[in-house]
Amino acid sequence: MAKRKYSIGVDLGTESGRAVLVDVANGKELATAVYAYKHGVIDDKLPGSRVRLEPDWALQDPEDYIRAFKSTIPAVLKLSGVDANDVIGIGIDFTACTMLPTTADGTPLCALPEFRSNPHAWVKLWKHHAAQPEADKINATARKMGETWLDRYGGKISSEWFFSKTLQILDESPEIYSAADRLIEAADWTVWQLTGQETRNSCTAGYKAMWARREGFPRDEYFAALDPRLEHVIDRKMSRSISAIGSRAGELTPHAARWTGLKAGTAVAVANVDAHVSVPAATVTEPGRMVMVMGTSTCHMVLGTQERVVPGMCGYVQDGIIPGYFGYEAGQSGVGDIFAWFVEHAVPPLYHTLAKERRLDLHRVLEQEARKSKPGESGLLALDWWNGNRSVLVDANLTGLLVGATLATRAPEIYRALLEATAFGTRVIIEALETHGVPVNELVACGGLPEKNKLLMQIYADVTGREFKVAASKQTPALGSAMFGAVAAGARAGGYDSIVQAAQKMARLKKESFYPVPAHQKIYDALYGEYKTLHDYFGRGQNDVMKRMKNIAADARKQP
Amino acid sequence: MAKRKYSIGVDLGTESGRAVLVDVANGKELATAVYAYKHGVIDDKLPGSRVRLEPDWALQDPEDYIRAFKSTIPAVLKLSGVDANDVIGIGIDFTACTMLPTTADGTPLCALPEFRSNPHAWVKLWKHHAAQPEADKINATARKMGETWLDRYGGKISSEWFFSKTLQILDESPEIYSAADRLIEAADWTVWQLTGQETRNSCTAGYKAMWARREGFPRDEYFAALDPRLEHVIDRKMSRSISAIGSRAGELTPHAARWTGLKAGTAVAVANVDAHVSVPAATVTEPGRMVMVMGTSTCHMVLGTQERVVPGMCGYVQDGIIPGYFGYEAGQSGVGDIFAWFVEHAVPPLYHTLAKERRLDLHRVLEQEARKSKPGESGLLALDWWNGNRSVLVDANLTGLLVGATLATRAPEIYRALLEATAFGTRVIIEALETHGVPVNELVACGGLPEKNKLLMQIYADVTGREFKVAASKQTPALGSAMFGAVAAGARAGGYDSIVQAAQKMARLKKESFYPVPAHQKIYDALYGEYKTLHDYFGRGQNDVMKRMKNIAADARKQP
Repeated sequence: MAKRKYSIGVDLGTESGRAVLVDVANGKELATAVYAYKHGVIDDKLPGSRVRLEPDWALQDPEDYIRAFKSTIPAVLKLSGVDANDVIGIGIDFTACTMLPTTADGTPLCALPEFRSNPHAWVKLWKHHAAQPEADKINATARKMGETWLDRYGGKISSEWFFSKTLQILDESPEIYSAADRLIEAADWTVWQLTGQETRNSCTAGYKAMWARREGFPRDEYFAALDPRLEHVIDRKMSRSISAIGSRAGELTPHAARWTGLKAGTAVAVANVDAHVSVPAATVTEPGRMVMVMGTSTCHMVLGTQERVVPGMCGYVQDGIIPGYFGYEAGQSGVGDIFAWFVEHAVPPLYHTLAKERRLDLHRVLEQEARKSKPGESGLLALDWWNGNRSVLVDANLTGLLVGATLATRAPEIYRALLEATAFGTRVIIEALETHGVPVNELVACGGLPEKNKLLMQIYADVTGREFKVAASKQTPALGSAMFGAVAAGARAGGYDSIVQAAQKMARLKKESFYPVPAHQKIYDALYGEYKTLHDYFGRGQNDVMKRMKNIAADARKQP
Repeated sequence: MAKRKYSIGVDLGTESGRAVLVDVANGKELATAVYAYKHGVIDDKLPGSRVRLEPDWALQDPEDYIRAFKSTIPAVLKLSGVDANDVIGIGIDFTACTMLPTTADGTPLCALPEFRSNPHAWVKLWKHHAAQPEADKINATARKMGETWLDRYGGKISSEWFFSKTLQILDESPEIYSAADRLIEAADWTVWQLTGQETRNSCTAGYKAMWARREGFPRDEYFAALDPRLEHVIDRKMSRSISAIGSRAGELTPHAARWTGLKAGTAVAVANVDAHVSVPAATVTEPGRMVMVMGTSTCHMVLGTQERVVPGMCGYVQDGIIPGYFGYEAGQSGVGDIFAWFVEHAVPPLYHTLAKERRLDLHRVLEQEARKSKPGESGLLALDWWNGNRSVLVDANLTGLLVGATLATRAPEIYRALLEATAFGTRVIIEALETHGVPVNELVACGGLPEKNKLLMQIYADVTGREFKVAASKQTPALGSAMFGAVAAGARAGGYDSIVQAAQKMARLKKESFYPVPAHQKIYDALYGEYKTLHDYFGRGQNDVMKRMKNIAADARKQP
């Protein structure tokens, strides 16, 4: 019998980095270690300086990613007792778009004394939201020039994405733009630090930087139209060579091996994105099964065999999730964070007392109480737009709505209406995909929410009329990265030759599954019809009251 | 100098009766006494029996009204030290429509042993809501027969009103209907007990029993169409002789004088309704100044010199409030009770803690916090239909709506949005009145709410663009009744010859007045435009989602 082999997945998140050491044969997670970034999310002032950041800024220190490797990999080796020689591969996943400017050798500009006090020299985190004017310009210019790639992204590029952030650097700090030999995703920069070679992955290039396998990046004329100084940004500061996810980026350098305690030469996978890497970790490597990463927001991913333009999606990318398929991505910008808002800001003391008495989280108490009412019984209906709408309407200025309140309405009923509203939001996305030729037959959840809330899962099954399964792992991103690490190593080294094979052996679902209840489905079909009418009335321009109220509010705040 | 004269007003409310002894010269309230009814609101089972009541029933025991006189009038005489010989008049006001069946001599049927266990023999309180099928029949029949009086009531008769309750007695207990020599408002029955003479007042006849000075009651043919047994209800069980409010019903009988400690022969005013009697007590005896009795709900009353059909009003009655004028009445079915709902069911512990720390009511804390945001700043807008809509849409199946919620929304902002929503609801009523030729130049508030919430008052001034004053008395109904008592006595006895004269001397406003702030008005004009669009969209049939959700909820509750 061959000796057991292991792979390590490293998930570099918003507040911390997490390493998981996994048995390649069966996906068993033997050890986990987490490192909380020294500087966390930098949104107030730059570390070691008095430089204050504007609102909407969110930066990170790239050194924190290296610290995460130095801390967590030795820890999982020690915790598991596994010999570093038996670790055949390492994969990483990252938040995205999270990007930084570096010198030609990969040194972050923020590590250079002359640029350390310039905020634009640091890593712009995914949730850096200060590049909206740039995103507006990118969209307007693309529409004016008839750029066809805009359709791939539902007609709108986000302020969070790569060129919005790049253009903000150029607009506000041309000296940083000029000094930046390379502009790169932090995911790819990290792999570069591990392997000594710059490699750019197809997932972030496709979903965040308007790249496609067939068409490449937007043409130079388009970038020149945005700003003449941007004309050659691809050739001069980026690269047209994009590595497919699922391939090998290189090998661990002796230098990086010393940080981690791993063997020099260990295979390193091309970097990936936290949501997308969860798809094979949730057992999905084929079309028809939609993976939903459910947390504060939800990211929906489904594979398709054909290229389809689906209005209002976040994007689709060939080879973006699983090689050989078009990966379609959609999103709901508020899910768990709406429930958290309600629990924190709208629940009277009675239920807080019950939570103490029952020694339960307040969410669980509201779930218990909400279960007492049947679908439709509260008479309440909500639009789940507390944090705007990311798909299908793609409008951050939409807001939350509740209708049906009476003097008899109680908090658990509103809580349930909010759960239902997010399920209706998911159904809108499923219907948009299916209408445009991308089938969705089954749902597979991962992320923090499904662990906790069985009522939520049942509601999703009832509302969508689809079986709803849950990934077995509680840390699907790290597991998925470990799977890609095993693929980077290859079958000859004891890993796998494809992510499909890796998923068959290493990924599992929970035994418990949620099935639609026909009686509930019938009621939810009626409620969904009402949701859809309100969705279109408030979301498609019939009554733009939500946006006008936002404008009135913005004006009011400016008053002395 | 003439000796001081006094008058007593008795306000017979839902839970208790209240007497106030007033100085006729200046309206000074010298003593107040309250009697909590022994049987309160009877909505569970009949006193002294096992007879259970259906949901929506609400009865009273007429003996409780007599007990209120026996308790409170001796009390105010004693408390004030006033000699009964110096009390020149007594007036009463009542909830309405609150009605009962009696024998020819005024004995309530529920006082007879043979009927005591029949719920229909008791007083049906205003909020007895079990006669909706009868109200539906009254409305359908009137529409079919083209009855013109329907227009006076905004096109709809309420289940709370006199003939809905009468028809329910006939439908469900024909033996009580048959035994009832008289069907009478409790207000008029009480005056009958005091004076020994049956007298029926123009206020309840007009607002609750479809009577008008010029046209009288609906014709017998109409009643016959409702039910052949009802054809002669007016002539056989009621009376076509209706006494104008402001006139004298009679004098205290020796028998009633013994209950009260007052002098036999003391003038007794024709009975009145609690809301309407507040109008002169709030100094209003002329057109153009709208009185708002603000409590759990709001009743709006304004005088007009001409007869105008205003769609969606509760009704208008010639001589219904002040002799010589048409009295227009409108209503908002949820005001203070919406705020109370919010405070009880939607405010997180943080503000409860602040209330304890500041030793303030939770409403006050929310008001303090809500004051920190400027008009429009929250981005929130609500439809104030938690308890349906009584005017202008006249639809009990409309429900509450909140739009504009984000993850940054906090409880005091929602509280403020609810205050604003009720102000928008009042503006809708004002605009309906003015559009149809009934001017409203100024607002005068009375009732429980204006005492407490200055932010609310300022918002009403800002939203309506009108000066908003507050009645000085905290018990305007009882003061108004005392004023009518002084008018019943007449100037020769030391009282007044008209309610206008009485109001000039006895009614006062608070010095503090609320003026619209132009900057606020501008913002609220914009918000009101948005409110009106949603009001019409959800309230006038463009999207009946509220009613459909109520139906879905009713069906869901029926499921096993």
